[in-house]
Amino acid sequence: MPDLTKAAFTEAARGVYVIAPTPFMENGVLDMESTDRMVDFFLEKGADGLTVLGMMGEAPKLTLEESQAFVQRVLARVQGRVPVIVGVSAAGFAQMGALSEMVMGDGASGVMVAPPSSLKSDEQIVNYYSMVAETVGEQTPFVLQDFPLVTNVFVPVSVILKIVGELPNCVCLKHEDWPGLTKVSALRSASDEGARRISILCGNGGLFLPEELARGADGAMTGFAYPEMMVEICRLHAAGETERARDVFDAYLPLVRYEQQPGLGLALRKYTLAKRGIIAQSKLRRPGPSLSATDIAELEKLIARQTARLQHLN
Amino acid sequence: MPDLTKAAFTEAARGVYVIAPTPFMENGVLDMESTDRMVDFFLEKGADGLTVLGMMGEAPKLTLEESQAFVQRVLARVQGRVPVIVGVSAAGFAQMGALSEMVMGDGASGVMVAPPSSLKSDEQIVNYYSMVAETVGEQTPFVLQDFPLVTNVFVPVSVILKIVGELPNCVCLKHEDWPGLTKVSALRSASDEGARRISILCGNGGLFLPEELARGADGAMTGFAYPEMMVEICRLHAAGETERARDVFDAYLPLVRYEQQPGLGLALRKYTLAKRGIIAQSKLRRPGPSLSATDIAELEKLIARQTARLQHLN
Amino acid sequence: MPDLTKAAFTEAARGVYVIAPTPFMENGVLDMESTDRMVDFFLEKGADGLTVLGMMGEAPKLTLEESQAFVQRVLARVQGRVPVIVGVSAAGFAQMGALSEMVMGDGASGVMVAPPSSLKSDEQIVNYYSMVAETVGEQTPFVLQDFPLVTNVFVPVSVILKIVGELPNCVCLKHEDWPGLTKVSALRSASDEGARRISILCGNGGLFLPEELARGADGAMTGFAYPEMMVEICRLHAAGETERARDVFDAYLPLVRYEQQPGLGLALRKYTLAKRGIIAQSKLRRPGPSLSATDIAELEKLIARQTARLQHLN
Amino acid sequence: MPDLTKAAFTEAARGVYVIAPTPFMENGVLDMESTDRMVDFFLEKGADGLTVLGMMGEAPKLTLEESQAFVQRVLARVQGRVPVIVGVSAAGFAQMGALSEMVMGDGASGVMVAPPSSLKSDEQIVNYYSMVAETVGEQTPFVLQDFPLVTNVFVPVSVILKIVGELPNCVCLKHEDWPGLTKVSALRSASDEGARRISILCGNGGLFLPEELARGADGAMTGFAYPEMMVEICRLHAAGETERARDVFDAYLPLVRYEQQPGLGLALRKYTLAKRGIIAQSKLRRPGPSLSATDIAELEKLIARQTARLQHLN
Repeated sequence: MPDLTKAAFTEAARGVYVIAPTPFMENGVLDMESTDRMVDFFLEKGADGLTVLGMMGEAPKLTLEESQAFVQRVLARVQGRVPVIVGVSAAGFAQMGALSEMVMGDGASGVMVAPPSSLKSDEQIVNYYSMVAETVGEQTPFVLQDFPLVTNVFVPVSVILKIVGELPNCVCLKHEDWPGLTKVSALRSASDEGARRISILCGNGGLFLPEELARGADGAMTGFAYPEMMVEICRLHAAGETERARDVFDAYLPLVRYEQQPGLGLALRKYTLAKRGIIAQSKLRRPGPSLSATDIAELEKLIARQTARLQHLN
Repeated sequence: MPDLTKAAFTEAARGVYVIAPTPFMENGVLDMESTDRMVDFFLEKGADGLTVLGMMGEAPKLTLEESQAFVQRVLARVQGRVPVIVGVSAAGFAQMGALSEMVMGDGASGVMVAPPSSLKSDEQIVNYYSMVAETVGEQTPFVLQDFPLVTNVFVPVSVILKIVGELPNCVCLKHEDWPGLTKVSALRSASDEGARRISILCGNGGLFLPEELARGADGAMTGFAYPEMMVEICRLHAAGETERARDVFDAYLPLVRYEQQPGLGLALRKYTLAKRGIIAQSKLRRPGPSLSATDIAELEKLIARQTARLQHLN
Repeated sequence: MPDLTKAAFTEAARGVYVIAPTPFMENGVLDMESTDRMVDFFLEKGADGLTVLGMMGEAPKLTLEESQAFVQRVLARVQGRVPVIVGVSAAGFAQMGALSEMVMGDGASGVMVAPPSSLKSDEQIVNYYSMVAETVGEQTPFVLQDFPLVTNVFVPVSVILKIVGELPNCVCLKHEDWPGLTKVSALRSASDEGARRISILCGNGGLFLPEELARGADGAMTGFAYPEMMVEICRLHAAGETERARDVFDAYLPLVRYEQQPGLGLALRKYTLAKRGIIAQSKLRRPGPSLSATDIAELEKLIARQTARLQHLN
Repeated sequence: MPDLTKAAFTEAARGVYVIAPTPFMENGVLDMESTDRMVDFFLEKGADGLTVLGMMGEAPKLTLEESQAFVQRVLARVQGRVPVIVGVSAAGFAQMGALSEMVMGDGASGVMVAPPSSLKSDEQIVNYYSMVAETVGEQTPFVLQDFPLVTNVFVPVSVILKIVGELPNCVCLKHEDWPGLTKVSALRSASDEGARRISILCGNGGLFLPEELARGADGAMTGFAYPEMMVEICRLHAAGETERARDVFDAYLPLVRYEQQPGLGLALRKYTLAKRGIIAQSKLRRPGPSLSATDIAELEKLIARQTARLQHLN
């Protein structure tokens, strides 16, 4: 039985929610020992929360049983120290509801849902999230994942505000529009003028994190093989040391950029996590790309240069 | 336990494979009694096979347990008299494999897979179906569902021929490109010249059935509230009575056209099936459209005119 | 110099605006003699207006000089007897403005603009048409072309109403959504309740014309090789003879359906117009499809059956 | 009359071809004096070529007359010192041919064509470029612009190689796929093994320039407000000073990343060019975004930090 202690996930969420990959063994089976090590690592590095079964978690490649087993393992290891959010996007509400009920019962603190690419108008998006809110239940906080590059659904500011206004259990926006800086500013202006203020946690591998924080975002919900970078930048930003925050950011930027490549990004991140000793090996489940010798050599060079820059910085 | 007797599904498949909707009760629960009646009705009207859990079967709205229960009910009622094909399209191969293994074990004769909208090149489509063939297993015949209007994946003739050449368990094309008449002709030319000849069963609600049969298609795999129309046209075509086949087709065409509207079509079909006493009621699971009074009046008028034309024809 | 007499094009537009193809000679040059014959033919058959340089007019294949020469020829032949609408959709407003000014100066009665596929939200669509209205000028009536199958832009009823409310020179909707019957009903409800009533002229080759008229559409703006069908149905509908209108419609429906195939449709229409002696030959400019012997044989059979049904009807 | 002296544009093209924006005056009219200054600036900074009327050149917002006037002004200023490439992508071949003939007659060295979003299969892409090659004429070298993020057309390596094999006047790939590093490697492997070797010039604002050069790209064809960065990196790479090249790259990277935002990027670039005194002001033609005070403050901060880093570097 998983521990049912759960940390609260509310509009006040801030800091770094690390998007966790799903570790596999060489034979493609879930690697539970690596899962434990990965959870420990993210918490040691200062993660304020974890998000699992997101797009970068290879969720669609897992069976329902595997999804549940993985979530339970993560929850058992976290033991309620930080909120765990679970991606429950699904082709139908029956599936979404079943998965959501399962993981919330297991001890997750909230769920995340991206809009399906079939949505074609503002009204359809609002209606969809009304059904999401009803499906997961009013006791279940949910994250609106706004990632048009992948979903092909553009969610205007007015639509986000309508969802926020109508659905109290929408407590967080995973902001991943690109370009999206204007969107952060517009949402913060709206909450300054009286709209309910929800948490804005940003994605895109942290590629615009300093600018996003400056415009009022509350942190990041994304993946990067060095989550300590995001934690440090959020800490420095909160402390008002914004120039130092940018220095740290710039030192990591060449690798952030490289890891942020669509398609190849997760393979690069898993390679680095394996190199750092966090997960046993870097295998992706099929279908998924594998790294060439050239890819690996480039990545190693970027890691080496990053290491040197960080030493220089300290 | 379901009866494991199963009818063979091979390249020789021909005639009418009715795409079966999934009946629900007023409260949204699967309606198993209507399911039995519907199976009996389709077989009495001369269906050569049934296809369940397709796009028109509201498959994405079912949980895995419901999908299995529905398939088992259909199989138990069919008792191996005709092949039953099950749609197993899924976001990942682990899910597809699990569902495929389940239904083939339960007594299905084959599975159907549509390409995911993420496929971007000819080579990616071929690779995807190689993985499909491996996932469902070489003992499992599969249908390639070619429906670009919904999938946004255009599958060229050369790609279909490559899949047919490389994957022996691809035994049937559910042909639903639009316009697709040229594609049927090209595929038949290729098999005349030595390519493996697979079954071509056409979709689009039968809207081009006379032309498709004339170009070498083997029948239809689609839905229409009057499956007897498709059965009769296939029979007349096989008997060489093509003018009579067109007379019958023309009598039904105004309704075929009306029922073929994207989005609203399934609601119209379920209304008519309920009116005919086949299913208890016409409810779609959410999210799904409902018919207005005007829609229903239009549909009733078209049914009345169709009835009059058919009497005139006989 | 073209005759500057022009017929008014207003919210009161009704009846059949035939979408005119652009005739070419065997060598690909504009065929001006066929253009004259085609104009005469459409007017003799009762067209209430003509629309040129639409998607079916191969507009993107013409140079600016050719576009102007063709429009001037049509206008010179029409001599102000009916309104002539010109498609001026363009990648940029400078181009749209230049073409619009040119053709309105030459004697056109209005212009038509489809939304570019880059539009992603309700607000962007409204803003786009605000700039269209400004670009073509408040003296120039324009048609909003709503054709999502081709443009990939879904225009909700609320957006159309906003455009109608804000832009007085939007006088007509070319309604070509599919399914779109609900949209016609919703727009008519809105104008019954006080929204400005604009003309709704329907597309899709007339495939739903009886239902569209019944729901309050004012006519058709589309192409079909037998425009007399659309004229007759509008006339019968206006006279209250709706059953007779449906009889006529049903007689033409097998061919309407066949000609309505995306991609191939224009080639089929030009073949039929050439067969009827209206245009000299059926050539499309490259890139464009050509008909196979099988396509032509099918088309001839459908024409022969249609002729027989019409004789039977009278 | 423009000077007809023209620099050759061949498979041997290398270095930096700067994508030039189109300067406008406050009232929206073409700014020819800024155009001259901009040409001078790019050549002084070491550009090996210029590309005008590309996506970043606001080409679709120009009328045909403006396009020609702008190209003639650029050509007159360049006076054959470097090749000038002109974007001639158009909705139809008649338009493309007319523009291509015009600019090649005026003294351009080559043209560039992106695939239209309607292309759906490998074969369609190859056929399209066959018609492009024929339309622009075998004496006109052309650039294949591969930019799927904007065009929605994925061009596989096999398709590029087929185009290169069949069309001798395809001399350059503007490589802008993302991720695209694997594509560069695959193309270079193919030319090593005997395929015709064409020039590969990379886009995406230079965001992956060091990696692209390392994999065999010949340079960049893209825009950035500091083209001297790209020139310097190409020079250092050619000299074997790859670590130094990366140091320079890293110093500019925060701004490269910021300027590379879709939608807003051109406005940022024009702001910076205006700030540097190259163009008179930063106005974009409508429809186009404008910068907020926050955008400008962020940009200024990034420029200031870049300036400091560069001083530190030297």
